[in-house]
Amino acid sequence: MLSPSSNSIKKAFRRVALVGKYQADGMQERLNDLAKLLSEQGCEVFIEAATASHLGLTARPIKTIEQFTGAIDLAVVLGGDGTILGIGRQLAGSGVPLVGINMGRLGYMTDIPIQQVQTILPQIIAGDYEADTRTLLDAVVLRKQQEINRALALNDVVVNRSGISGMVELAVRVNGSFMYNQRSDGLIVSTPTGSTAYALSAGGPILHPRVAGLLLVPIAPHALSNRPIVLPEDIVVNIEVVEGKEVIVNFDMQSQTHLQAGDIIQVCQSDKTITLLHPCGHSDYKTLREKLHWNEYPSTF
Amino acid sequence: MLSPSSNSIKKAFRRVALVGKYQADGMQERLNDLAKLLSEQGCEVFIEAATASHLGLTARPIKTIEQFTGAIDLAVVLGGDGTILGIGRQLAGSGVPLVGINMGRLGYMTDIPIQQVQTILPQIIAGDYEADTRTLLDAVVLRKQQEINRALALNDVVVNRSGISGMVELAVRVNGSFMYNQRSDGLIVSTPTGSTAYALSAGGPILHPRVAGLLLVPIAPHALSNRPIVLPEDIVVNIEVVEGKEVIVNFDMQSQTHLQAGDIIQVCQSDKTITLLHPCGHSDYKTLREKLHWNEYPSTF
Amino acid sequence: MLSPSSNSIKKAFRRVALVGKYQADGMQERLNDLAKLLSEQGCEVFIEAATASHLGLTARPIKTIEQFTGAIDLAVVLGGDGTILGIGRQLAGSGVPLVGINMGRLGYMTDIPIQQVQTILPQIIAGDYEADTRTLLDAVVLRKQQEINRALALNDVVVNRSGISGMVELAVRVNGSFMYNQRSDGLIVSTPTGSTAYALSAGGPILHPRVAGLLLVPIAPHALSNRPIVLPEDIVVNIEVVEGKEVIVNFDMQSQTHLQAGDIIQVCQSDKTITLLHPCGHSDYKTLREKLHWNEYPSTF
Amino acid sequence: MLSPSSNSIKKAFRRVALVGKYQADGMQERLNDLAKLLSEQGCEVFIEAATASHLGLTARPIKTIEQFTGAIDLAVVLGGDGTILGIGRQLAGSGVPLVGINMGRLGYMTDIPIQQVQTILPQIIAGDYEADTRTLLDAVVLRKQQEINRALALNDVVVNRSGISGMVELAVRVNGSFMYNQRSDGLIVSTPTGSTAYALSAGGPILHPRVAGLLLVPIAPHALSNRPIVLPEDIVVNIEVVEGKEVIVNFDMQSQTHLQAGDIIQVCQSDKTITLLHPCGHSDYKTLREKLHWNEYPSTF
Repeated sequence: MLSPSSNSIKKAFRRVALVGKYQADGMQERLNDLAKLLSEQGCEVFIEAATASHLGLTARPIKTIEQFTGAIDLAVVLGGDGTILGIGRQLAGSGVPLVGINMGRLGYMTDIPIQQVQTILPQIIAGDYEADTRTLLDAVVLRKQQEINRALALNDVVVNRSGISGMVELAVRVNGSFMYNQRSDGLIVSTPTGSTAYALSAGGPILHPRVAGLLLVPIAPHALSNRPIVLPEDIVVNIEVVEGKEVIVNFDMQSQTHLQAGDIIQVCQSDKTITLLHPCGHSDYKTLREKLHWNEYPSTF
Repeated sequence: MLSPSSNSIKKAFRRVALVGKYQADGMQERLNDLAKLLSEQGCEVFIEAATASHLGLTARPIKTIEQFTGAIDLAVVLGGDGTILGIGRQLAGSGVPLVGINMGRLGYMTDIPIQQVQTILPQIIAGDYEADTRTLLDAVVLRKQQEINRALALNDVVVNRSGISGMVELAVRVNGSFMYNQRSDGLIVSTPTGSTAYALSAGGPILHPRVAGLLLVPIAPHALSNRPIVLPEDIVVNIEVVEGKEVIVNFDMQSQTHLQAGDIIQVCQSDKTITLLHPCGHSDYKTLREKLHWNEYPSTF
Repeated sequence: MLSPSSNSIKKAFRRVALVGKYQADGMQERLNDLAKLLSEQGCEVFIEAATASHLGLTARPIKTIEQFTGAIDLAVVLGGDGTILGIGRQLAGSGVPLVGINMGRLGYMTDIPIQQVQTILPQIIAGDYEADTRTLLDAVVLRKQQEINRALALNDVVVNRSGISGMVELAVRVNGSFMYNQRSDGLIVSTPTGSTAYALSAGGPILHPRVAGLLLVPIAPHALSNRPIVLPEDIVVNIEVVEGKEVIVNFDMQSQTHLQAGDIIQVCQSDKTITLLHPCGHSDYKTLREKLHWNEYPSTF
Repeated sequence: MLSPSSNSIKKAFRRVALVGKYQADGMQERLNDLAKLLSEQGCEVFIEAATASHLGLTARPIKTIEQFTGAIDLAVVLGGDGTILGIGRQLAGSGVPLVGINMGRLGYMTDIPIQQVQTILPQIIAGDYEADTRTLLDAVVLRKQQEINRALALNDVVVNRSGISGMVELAVRVNGSFMYNQRSDGLIVSTPTGSTAYALSAGGPILHPRVAGLLLVPIAPHALSNRPIVLPEDIVVNIEVVEGKEVIVNFDMQSQTHLQAGDIIQVCQSDKTITLLHPCGHSDYKTLREKLHWNEYPSTF
């Protein structure tokens, strides 16, 4: 079932993994504090393997993300949205929900400040939370009908030109129907989650996390009437590189493939999801207001 | 079930009504030709009452739009998108599908050129078509908890300032959650259908007709980071007039209410829909390309 | 000579007028403090007539703005940019420079915080300042070749539709050359000063105050490729109302004329200017950064 | 003297060079026809060296662009705006004006269709034309205070990230004043000529060729309130690469330098110009209308 903000499927979490690759001062101490807090709540606490090795946290049992399924009930992530982006693709489909805790700077996905963790985390552990399921993109890169790469993306799949070429020309088809040939700096295919990231900078709209759709945002298109378009979640987007030197496709800006003319990137919604847990009363709009300064007016006219 | 482009529920149409309020030379003759064509296909042909009285078409039986339900199987509309907009709200929920025929200028909803009607209309009458269900907005205007107006909109509900006032301040809530206080020229709440109309001019994205969502587009907002947002179809948007002189709410720019500070406009998706019928092989993207000049590039760089 | 940020023509100011119509608590006391400060600097202090009558400041000599020329060397304005906008048109061409002091909220033109006035105002009085000359627009409204209104504008001349009409169609000519027929919500003709006001909300660029040019910004234009355009300062823009109900032209949103089809608004740069004085080391970019949050990034991607 | 559209300094041209690198069918024949036409007007006709060698045009005397100054009175360019872009930098400051002839597709600078050349070219040769002087940018790339590259640009100087890096952070100073730190895909510094090229795709305004100013357009900036800004022509812009992998600076997308963190690109208006000649009655607005489809409206609302 897609992206419900369902309050009904609540349960207590017993086996909790801590993730925190973020390189900040005092990360080790904070994770130890979190582990202590979780233990006091009756949880069995594990440290994610890369986090443990990175920070030298060897006092507690360790699990790789691959080992989470069936062995872990909840992942608590300390860091920024980038940290969640990094592990989101690995956790997708595992059934293990995430809680995102920030270290001072509010994130769209890491919305719990570390200062409030003593109050909020016990509530979530006790089953008092709002679930927020996020969709991912499933992208395949085809060269002469052969798959040369496949990746999941939580934010976006971005095809763009390099700095040395003037533009890239892309032919875009949706469910086999030709949409347009686009000359531009590139094209972003974004999830609702990614709509507040690069797509927003490129002029795209915000999609509420529960909107069942994909977003296409052209980057600096030559045709001035070319606008962002929101497509239904059940479609397949085909992007063919018609022309362009040093064209690249990026997945969440974390992995990439160098493309040639004729290559096709096929993007659809993945059947895997990840689920974020928020404290009750959580408001996406509050986060947007704070991050985008929506209540401050620049001018006095 | 919402907005399927379903090919399976096909049937032949027997009782067909002609609608054509568009004031163009030769409208009478063209409607007579259409009536003849439909008769030849074995249809029983009716003329919509306002069309008949406007053009003096008295040779055939007449039906008001209110009488369509149960008495008419298909409405054939000759004109532009504005003509469909005009009758769409009246037909919503009637179960009578529409076919839109343009007189030379391609419309998003009137996509069959009059020149091709001899070929296409018989196919549609025979049950060979693609159905395209469109959602509507249901808007209520509240003053001191009293409903002072209620209207359906196929394109959009628009709250905006008049020319004499500098701006309007609106407080927007979604499902009871505060979203923002917005100072601007106004706010557009749009259906996917309306996303190619006024919302597009104001900087909004295009929503494919099958996207299950509502679109909010601020008009010239003071806060520069205020962006269009797409919300799920099951929400209720509350727009309160905080401040502003001569503020007006428009429904499809066809009816309107003058507002006062404190008035609330409550908008949600209607449970009524209308269904457009297209020839098989119809492409929304082709229409977008042609209307928006997507394949022409302005510059030579 | 146009808009120099000239440091060379410095002089001390002896006869200073205080202006402060802004309705804020403690305005009377603050103006008295300012008067005292200026007296201590050896200035002869006058109160602007409307300010005096509004606040009951009768202890000092009074001058109407019309009496400033020849009698006043400097006008010190306490309030926001709106206050300067209000008196800017009256002072244009008088040769009396202005200093803008804000009461806590930074303005583009009122850039000196009241808290720093004890340090900065004596420096300016002593001739230590940066002059910043601002251009104005001169607009004439013609109906059947007859002038029916004429006004100056420091920010902008705005032609726009009212809330009840769908759009306005305008025919725009520049120096007699046809530019375009534009269907939209309206058109803004802006000075560089006005480029950070309404024009910015409507999608216009920022013009540095020293740019010798006029800015045209369409408001929600139907043609998606219609973009803001910057024109040289020596041109005349002719805007003809082709079609539209209840169309209005606004001058700095402070005065206005109701228009009819066929009316023409003729806009050119005025030969009058006003001069703002800033403390030495003043930076327009710092003001922009602070007002537009340029150094804060919304996302974490 | 800067960018006048001066009709007064007219003169007849005797020694004319033909340029036409554009690879299109029949280019050789068209250039021969042009040469014949010019000879008939009493001109001495030369072929630009690269054009001659590229097309095997050896029947007439040849001159390299470097040899034009003092030896050539007028350069007639057959091709698109790209062709003019290619030789504009070389001709800058030579005092040799250009006439741009297109082969069917209207250009901003190549505005005379080949079909009308028999009528228009004799008029221009006879001194009946409108001169249109265009400014260029002068850009220096500094690494550790050393100049590592210097180039002129007729359109733009573009600093941007490559496809593999998420963003570039740039610190921008104007005349030594800090403007902003910008995280984005890059930054365009454009002339008025370049304002209809890449800058327009990135969301910039159009600058009339006679506007004395430089345009800065951020490309997909993270800070949503970051807007294009027009600066006076006498300023120096300093762009420092703060952070970013594989950052590149492009000059008219024709030459480039790979940058490192700490590198500075210094851009100002060049003291060299080029002059385009247009037929009398030429209208920049007509070209804009045709290239940007300004009189066609996409929607029917």
